[in-house]
Amino acid sequence: MNAPRIPAEMKAVVTTGHGGLDKLDYRTVPVPAPAADEVLVKVAACGLNNTDIWTREGRYGTEEDPAAIAGPGRTPANFPQIQGADVVGTIVAVGSGVAATRIGERVIVDNTIYGEDETGTGYVGSIGGTHPGGYAEYCAVPAVSAFAVRTSLSDAELATFPCAYSTAEHMLSRACLAAGETVLVTGASGGVGSALIQLAQARGAKAVGVARASKLDWVRKLGPIAVIDSDAPDFAEAVRRAIGRPSLDVVADVVGGRHMRALLGLLRPLGRYVTAGAIADPMVSLDLRTIYLKHLELAGISLGRPEDFRALLGYIEAGKVKPLLHKTFPLAEIRRAQTEFMQKNFTGKLVVLP
Amino acid sequence: MNAPRIPAEMKAVVTTGHGGLDKLDYRTVPVPAPAADEVLVKVAACGLNNTDIWTREGRYGTEEDPAAIAGPGRTPANFPQIQGADVVGTIVAVGSGVAATRIGERVIVDNTIYGEDETGTGYVGSIGGTHPGGYAEYCAVPAVSAFAVRTSLSDAELATFPCAYSTAEHMLSRACLAAGETVLVTGASGGVGSALIQLAQARGAKAVGVARASKLDWVRKLGPIAVIDSDAPDFAEAVRRAIGRPSLDVVADVVGGRHMRALLGLLRPLGRYVTAGAIADPMVSLDLRTIYLKHLELAGISLGRPEDFRALLGYIEAGKVKPLLHKTFPLAEIRRAQTEFMQKNFTGKLVVLP
Repeated sequence: MNAPRIPAEMKAVVTTGHGGLDKLDYRTVPVPAPAADEVLVKVAACGLNNTDIWTREGRYGTEEDPAAIAGPGRTPANFPQIQGADVVGTIVAVGSGVAATRIGERVIVDNTIYGEDETGTGYVGSIGGTHPGGYAEYCAVPAVSAFAVRTSLSDAELATFPCAYSTAEHMLSRACLAAGETVLVTGASGGVGSALIQLAQARGAKAVGVARASKLDWVRKLGPIAVIDSDAPDFAEAVRRAIGRPSLDVVADVVGGRHMRALLGLLRPLGRYVTAGAIADPMVSLDLRTIYLKHLELAGISLGRPEDFRALLGYIEAGKVKPLLHKTFPLAEIRRAQTEFMQKNFTGKLVVLP
Repeated sequence: MNAPRIPAEMKAVVTTGHGGLDKLDYRTVPVPAPAADEVLVKVAACGLNNTDIWTREGRYGTEEDPAAIAGPGRTPANFPQIQGADVVGTIVAVGSGVAATRIGERVIVDNTIYGEDETGTGYVGSIGGTHPGGYAEYCAVPAVSAFAVRTSLSDAELATFPCAYSTAEHMLSRACLAAGETVLVTGASGGVGSALIQLAQARGAKAVGVARASKLDWVRKLGPIAVIDSDAPDFAEAVRRAIGRPSLDVVADVVGGRHMRALLGLLRPLGRYVTAGAIADPMVSLDLRTIYLKHLELAGISLGRPEDFRALLGYIEAGKVKPLLHKTFPLAEIRRAQTEFMQKNFTGKLVVLP
């Protein structure tokens, strides 16, 4: 395939600083040149995620001051920044260290950037976080992060997967969720929540979905063994009644807040709780006796690992996870897309198209 | 050795119900007959532990009501009960399934009772908890729990070890504390806390001890790389200054309460927090973002496992842990012993002698 002509400039949404929607500036910027180990992707679709909003609003706090304005690493965010974690498109150019035969590949991009760092997490950044992302016509990404994908799904459908599903798969792996076990998923109508339900089932586990009453019908279609209204008067008792048992094996929580004590109470001895976000409230209270008397494990993760993304690719190509696309917007209408995203009156994923 | 004559009756302290010191009744009761797989130990010394008090006062709460009166398994305690977890003495009789050659052995008793239970923890009870304990002249225990021990330590010195040290060793194993790593130990002047410091050092790790100012000199003698006043105005900063680094690998916490957020803040990415008790307050608040952004693990355990007790025995016989005996009392003076124990104005262990 002949290399397509790359323009010098492109349209992109640039986040200019911490603040409101007015910090999202749709403007003309230079097309990035891929570094030696990168490929240049012509972006066909890019999904929206909570981390876009949390980063722009600086809602990660610090350890000293939970209400402080801080970026995802709790360090100052790197503005101006092109956000957008869920990149799907076509490789149109390659860096000097990458085979030119990759030009023309239709790819889905792993948003986590891996490498040796002093903390030992194996992460050195993320696309749309520390590295320019997909809210643009073109995006340069590590060649190892761009995966050719064989699927009949549309670009917008594919763009529902990367960030939410690799994070969710990492959560389930971290909690060692095994086939036959039961996992309670909070925020089950959200991006990571609905991913957790599908991925739990893909590994042979049983899921119980928690969401607002208005979204339970949608969640039910994902196949959980039970759905629970998050506002049920006696939440823990409602779960026990629905599953017909006093306890379950794993809680995968992306909500936090007032149900924390009940969630730990629902775990069986040796049960595991895992979190990767807390949309309701990250400040929680709990009873350490529940943790030590039941020998519980609580773990946190962020982003996915290479093995999580590979597992996800396998599930996508095998049709074991379904894209839950709600709506697409032109990239130019990012403010309208994020407004709808933040209102949380929808189910499924929102995607922008450059 | 000829089997010694066993009397029909003995003196014991019987805990008659949930409540104050008046529930401790020093009375005459029948000497227990060992079951087929048990040995009868003539108790020479028995150490005091927080769980004695928490069980008598019913301070374990329930998952529904943290202030409820409940026993260690959060089920009703089994009164009347002979408490006392730290049994040291001599085997004077054996059950039908145990070799009579064990009569005459000087033994230290593992207080955890193991077996298959439906929860998967591998525990079916504990000596002095679900099973009659060592606040008596005689005590029947599983033969596999009574270990012959070669040491020049006194009975009272040996009785400082079982419950606190096997729990502490389990905590450090659960947190995978490795040689060269640094662990912060709260309540470092207490029974489990001082055990944690000694056992961390026995495995080649570095310990940092936190205690009240009045007890820091005593803690310092245990060999930690630093000691921290638990009432230091900026607690986290005081730790960082003392260790000359921004973070550490493991927190082993038996205090809970107001420092919880600071403790998690002090952990490095991929750090581990482990608890087995919360003497200050089990109700804590924390920031889930600290857990997921740093990929932390929080785990709880109670009691020890067989491998923890075996490790402890090895350390005792090798002289790698020192008995921290503060004072002995006659068994008849259990109320005076527990009064002093609860005032926490001492360092080291209290032991009663039948």
